[in-house]
Amino acid sequence: MTTSTAPAAVVEARVRVRYAETDQMGVVYYANYFVWFEVGRVEYFRAHGFSYSLMERHDDCHLPVVEAKCRYKSPARYDDALVIRTRLTRRRGPILHFAYEIVREADAELLATGETVHVLVDAKFQARELPDRYLGLPIAEA
Amino acid sequence: MTTSTAPAAVVEARVRVRYAETDQMGVVYYANYFVWFEVGRVEYFRAHGFSYSLMERHDDCHLPVVEAKCRYKSPARYDDALVIRTRLTRRRGPILHFAYEIVREADAELLATGETVHVLVDAKFQARELPDRYLGLPIAEA
Amino acid sequence: MTTSTAPAAVVEARVRVRYAETDQMGVVYYANYFVWFEVGRVEYFRAHGFSYSLMERHDDCHLPVVEAKCRYKSPARYDDALVIRTRLTRRRGPILHFAYEIVREADAELLATGETVHVLVDAKFQARELPDRYLGLPIAEA
Amino acid sequence: MTTSTAPAAVVEARVRVRYAETDQMGVVYYANYFVWFEVGRVEYFRAHGFSYSLMERHDDCHLPVVEAKCRYKSPARYDDALVIRTRLTRRRGPILHFAYEIVREADAELLATGETVHVLVDAKFQARELPDRYLGLPIAEA
Repeated sequence: MTTSTAPAAVVEARVRVRYAETDQMGVVYYANYFVWFEVGRVEYFRAHGFSYSLMERHDDCHLPVVEAKCRYKSPARYDDALVIRTRLTRRRGPILHFAYEIVREADAELLATGETVHVLVDAKFQARELPDRYLGLPIAEA
Repeated sequence: MTTSTAPAAVVEARVRVRYAETDQMGVVYYANYFVWFEVGRVEYFRAHGFSYSLMERHDDCHLPVVEAKCRYKSPARYDDALVIRTRLTRRRGPILHFAYEIVREADAELLATGETVHVLVDAKFQARELPDRYLGLPIAEA
Repeated sequence: MTTSTAPAAVVEARVRVRYAETDQMGVVYYANYFVWFEVGRVEYFRAHGFSYSLMERHDDCHLPVVEAKCRYKSPARYDDALVIRTRLTRRRGPILHFAYEIVREADAELLATGETVHVLVDAKFQARELPDRYLGLPIAEA
Repeated sequence: MTTSTAPAAVVEARVRVRYAETDQMGVVYYANYFVWFEVGRVEYFRAHGFSYSLMERHDDCHLPVVEAKCRYKSPARYDDALVIRTRLTRRRGPILHFAYEIVREADAELLATGETVHVLVDAKFQARELPDRYLGLPIAEA
């Protein structure tokens, strides 16, 4: 799993489809795309110098999901190498919106698009402001 | 996991939150709600006399998801007994829309709502018409 | 998911195979049996009057797995109703051994057997003694 | 996820722990190590020139698990970069034995070891011989 090195507004992460992620239709089970979105979010933060792990542990910043959506265009299949393109599309107070594209690397086919909305909270699930040092995260509107 | 016995427009299924479904925030990981939606769909069909397993094997009817959405209102927690309320909200040709509510049984709190859109296909992912015997499934608009 | 009401040495829990648990071979993915073992453990405790959730929260008793094993005899398939038979086979200080059988309800076929070994720890992963009130849990040697 | 380029007897694959893989103890849920073992197996085959995906589709060679075991030494945690070391330890007719080590990349700590036993079958789950071209896979006894 690697990310583009430049702190771009759109960050790419890579995953390969695991056997565990397929179902008996022979394609990836639909809930797993949301796991990949999370992988994309984490790499988005990492590309901008932030470890989500440390955001939780050192800054008491947690990002539970309040809304999640995915549109499935073409099925991902076992062993496909995928690119997850993640961007932050909006930020208003403690509310962050992310958008995602899942693309098959071999043929660049767009397999799915999605969005998640998060509210920044502390460990007790109380909404809180984003610490200053995260304010520079680039916004790439849809 | 049980369902109401009457072929109601809204069908209830029950699950108990598994440890595997939690994450290190101490609540259920967001992708798992989509697994529960699928449990709800299956019990919706069963309550109306259809086994989704036989739909696939005998009728070559498969229902891949083309769109899925969830709004998270309050976190489900480990060992919570949950009720999944599923209804079919729309059907047009091979396109079916389902809506879901996830409710905590102990206090009837609504934890999440969601929708999925499916296209009916055969094993080769070609769209196909719904066989006649499924046409009586009740529609409960939102 | 239900359990036998008597505090028997062997406790039964019930699950139905979810679509999410299948893989593209058309059977249940092998890691999911360990999730069912955990469901069995939780129901074992519940059948004896203990909530594993409260064991964690009130008694600071956690049971991480130090060893897990499964032998797969015949594949579980989508929508199979399964019985998980769980028993505590050994307890020595903070070490607990559980054994499991996974049986298909329809034909009573034994699909898998397994064992897990746990060490009782506090929230900081330090081994600790089992509180007195758990000492009466019945041991059913293999 | 990358593998050593030489067709070594021990093949390394890399994964990073996903948030989805943690549980409310704040560590990785135990069943997920078996998913990583599978990632390791796939990369073992790939390092030796074989795509498990094509083994299934072109050679009708499937490798269901008949036995799986894991010993957990130290917990993997969210965002840990892990190395999965996989080797084939034994092959007798259609039976293959694999062994695994899960190591944290940052400090080279051994987190878990495991074994899986597989029987080579066709799509109808009938045992079959390994095609000749796989016979050169190196055996690295324990």
